[in-house]
Amino acid sequence: MQPSFVASACDASCPFPLNNLPYGVFSQKDTSRSVCVAIGDRPLVTAKTAGTIFSEATLNAFLALGKPAWLEVRVALQDALSAAPKRQNMQAELMPLQSDVTMHLPAKIGDYTDFYSSLNHARNVGTMFRGPENALPPNWLHMPIGYHGRASSVVVSGTPVTRPCGQLRPNPEAPPVFAPCRLLDFELEMATLIGGPENELGKRIPMNEAGDRIFGFSLMNDWSARDIQKWEYVPLGPFGAKSFATTISPWIIPLEALEPFKQEPQAQDPEVLPYLRGESSMRGHCTYNIDLTVKLQSVAGELPSTVCRSNFKNLYWTVAQQITHHAVTGCNMQPGDLIASGTISGEDASAFGSMLELSWKGTKEIALENCDSPTTRKFLQDGDTVVMEGHAVGNGFTIGFGDCSGNILPASKE
Amino acid sequence: MQPSFVASACDASCPFPLNNLPYGVFSQKDTSRSVCVAIGDRPLVTAKTAGTIFSEATLNAFLALGKPAWLEVRVALQDALSAAPKRQNMQAELMPLQSDVTMHLPAKIGDYTDFYSSLNHARNVGTMFRGPENALPPNWLHMPIGYHGRASSVVVSGTPVTRPCGQLRPNPEAPPVFAPCRLLDFELEMATLIGGPENELGKRIPMNEAGDRIFGFSLMNDWSARDIQKWEYVPLGPFGAKSFATTISPWIIPLEALEPFKQEPQAQDPEVLPYLRGESSMRGHCTYNIDLTVKLQSVAGELPSTVCRSNFKNLYWTVAQQITHHAVTGCNMQPGDLIASGTISGEDASAFGSMLELSWKGTKEIALENCDSPTTRKFLQDGDTVVMEGHAVGNGFTIGFGDCSGNILPASKE
Ligand SMILES: [Ca+2]
Ligand SMILES: [Ca+2]
Ligand SMILES: [Mg+2]
Ligand SMILES: [Mg+2]
Ligand code: NI
Repeated sequence: MQPSFVASACDASCPFPLNNLPYGVFSQKDTSRSVCVAIGDRPLVTAKTAGTIFSEATLNAFLALGKPAWLEVRVALQDALSAAPKRQNMQAELMPLQSDVTMHLPAKIGDYTDFYSSLNHARNVGTMFRGPENALPPNWLHMPIGYHGRASSVVVSGTPVTRPCGQLRPNPEAPPVFAPCRLLDFELEMATLIGGPENELGKRIPMNEAGDRIFGFSLMNDWSARDIQKWEYVPLGPFGAKSFATTISPWIIPLEALEPFKQEPQAQDPEVLPYLRGESSMRGHCTYNIDLTVKLQSVAGELPSTVCRSNFKNLYWTVAQQITHHAVTGCNMQPGDLIASGTISGEDASAFGSMLELSWKGTKEIALENCDSPTTRKFLQDGDTVVMEGHAVGNGFTIGFGDCSGNILPASKE
Repeated sequence: MQPSFVASACDASCPFPLNNLPYGVFSQKDTSRSVCVAIGDRPLVTAKTAGTIFSEATLNAFLALGKPAWLEVRVALQDALSAAPKRQNMQAELMPLQSDVTMHLPAKIGDYTDFYSSLNHARNVGTMFRGPENALPPNWLHMPIGYHGRASSVVVSGTPVTRPCGQLRPNPEAPPVFAPCRLLDFELEMATLIGGPENELGKRIPMNEAGDRIFGFSLMNDWSARDIQKWEYVPLGPFGAKSFATTISPWIIPLEALEPFKQEPQAQDPEVLPYLRGESSMRGHCTYNIDLTVKLQSVAGELPSTVCRSNFKNLYWTVAQQITHHAVTGCNMQPGDLIASGTISGEDASAFGSMLELSWKGTKEIALENCDSPTTRKFLQDGDTVVMEGHAVGNGFTIGFGDCSGNILPASKE
């Protein structure tokens, strides 16, 4: 725990101690958006504290500066917010209460890519749809498989999610129908916000440089319409089944804050091609011990019920490998790009990161523990709220991610 | 032909008569980028001519204004550039030669989507890979299939294209290898630039409103690494095989310029679901008679050889249907989004829009007619230049699209 003059930031369970200092974008009534960091349980540092990056309406300009600038600003902020006596009079002027502000999307997302990097998730889904013998596609162990997602529909935590309509084919012998999605799902993911100078189109990003493109992480809920997805995704991949909303938590946790939770990545067998090999000393070529939970609240006012307890460690491919593979054909990665991990499922059934897996394709009921009357789910119902949380628990301190939540609205008539 | 005081714009074969007036973005040495229109064989109208949209560095602000503003500006420009005597002294001041300017990407692309809307192309590719009985995926006739593409790698005509490296698996019994792409291809497509006010996330775009979101068209070459694509695309769709470069022509042809070339769309059987049905009176729910050619120049200095003669009419799904389907789950379409048609292949083998089809998966040689010594191709070689052209030929006038070209550079060592 690094001590701060902000008292609430010094509690071992506070998600935003001085060691964390995640970045976000906020506005207050009558003020325009600006960059901020979170410190303590509620307050924020506002635009007045530091250099010009805090007067921007998105993080993009700061992202473009690259790692040396990120580290410099982090050190300066940690000094300004430390427990040194000279700083103690900053608080009232500079920090509105978090309850008085609105959080926004932290960056203008350029391109958004969704990977598929949890072996348990890929095996689960493959087993359901192709049987245990053909569960993994032949390329899965050779590359971090990913697909381009929709950037315009990435929204910040708290944005309501309208149940999508689209083409479904509930009866495979009959023609498809137009209807509201019946199998609405969440996907528990971690998102990486990309920064640093853009690699020139046509040039790759070697493993030892990939990590410098990682600014930080946020939680992501990749909402998925399973019935729409099933009918549309062959042969070109998921499309409308995912592009109605993708929620991220408002705080971007700098990679530096997660250093104490670094671990060796999962062993990869077969050995990967040389361009994907790295040392664990390389930034981002590792895994992180971050507890991830998904809670479902079926009725406003009731306590949310935990339906999934997973961990970032359940990813097979590292973020560095995702970036290097993304750019291997020469794709230019730009500050503001977002790359998601794919659904993070653990081995145990309680650690599955989607309702598709938790209800095993709708064959099992998921019991909601905290409801006043017995309540179960197979997929999401209108009015349900899904809340994702992430915590890395250190020795006397916690690095929290802030909530990633969304409430399901009924399908729109128009 | 609408007469203009610009003499070169009054020739029946001039691609940019007053009826066309396509939009682009240019810069001159020592000047920053600004919006322009093309008039005549070479000149451009510069920023001084019209309102503030011409001082912007991209078309995005103009795109956002929507159809009424687009029509108003078009009428004003056609008046200013007409053959009325009062205008005749504008030329020298306002119009640099096209050879003195550099053309840029006309818009900041938000999201880029690639459809798959030519029945001939889908049948060809399906027949090659799954046999004639299973050529079409079961969903193909029910919806315009599309996938999200990479926006950052969309480049303007003339940008060199570096042969991508990536994972290939030439021997399906052996592990994959890392190597330069061996089966580099083009795809002849038409791109639609989206404008108009964004539909709110969660709201659909009905067929009768879809057309108002169409600003105009440009040519597109969706460069494709067939061997990388084959190994990566199951189950989540094309990824790195497409994201190394996607070239568009610099001019956006307003939909109004194409009115004389409107035709009834292809008959659709089975009948589509009601949300995709429209009247041919609906803007964009039609096809257009636009001749499209692809030329290949194997050696600098030699005449390019025509390898494909196709037509926009070869699309089964209309642009209005693409937009309505894209938004059916509530996806917000933003000004600056780009949606591509998919490879436009005709029925005849000379009208196939990719080398994959022209060489029938590499089983046939494509002869280049204009080479000094006999030259053939199955896929693209380093040094090849691909030029796509589009022309709609009316009664005494031509609506030209401007070239969409790119030269293949050898694979990068880094
Ligand atoms: Ca996902
Ligand atoms: Ca294509
Ligand atoms: Mg999504
Ligand atoms: Mg492409
Ligand atoms: Ni918490």
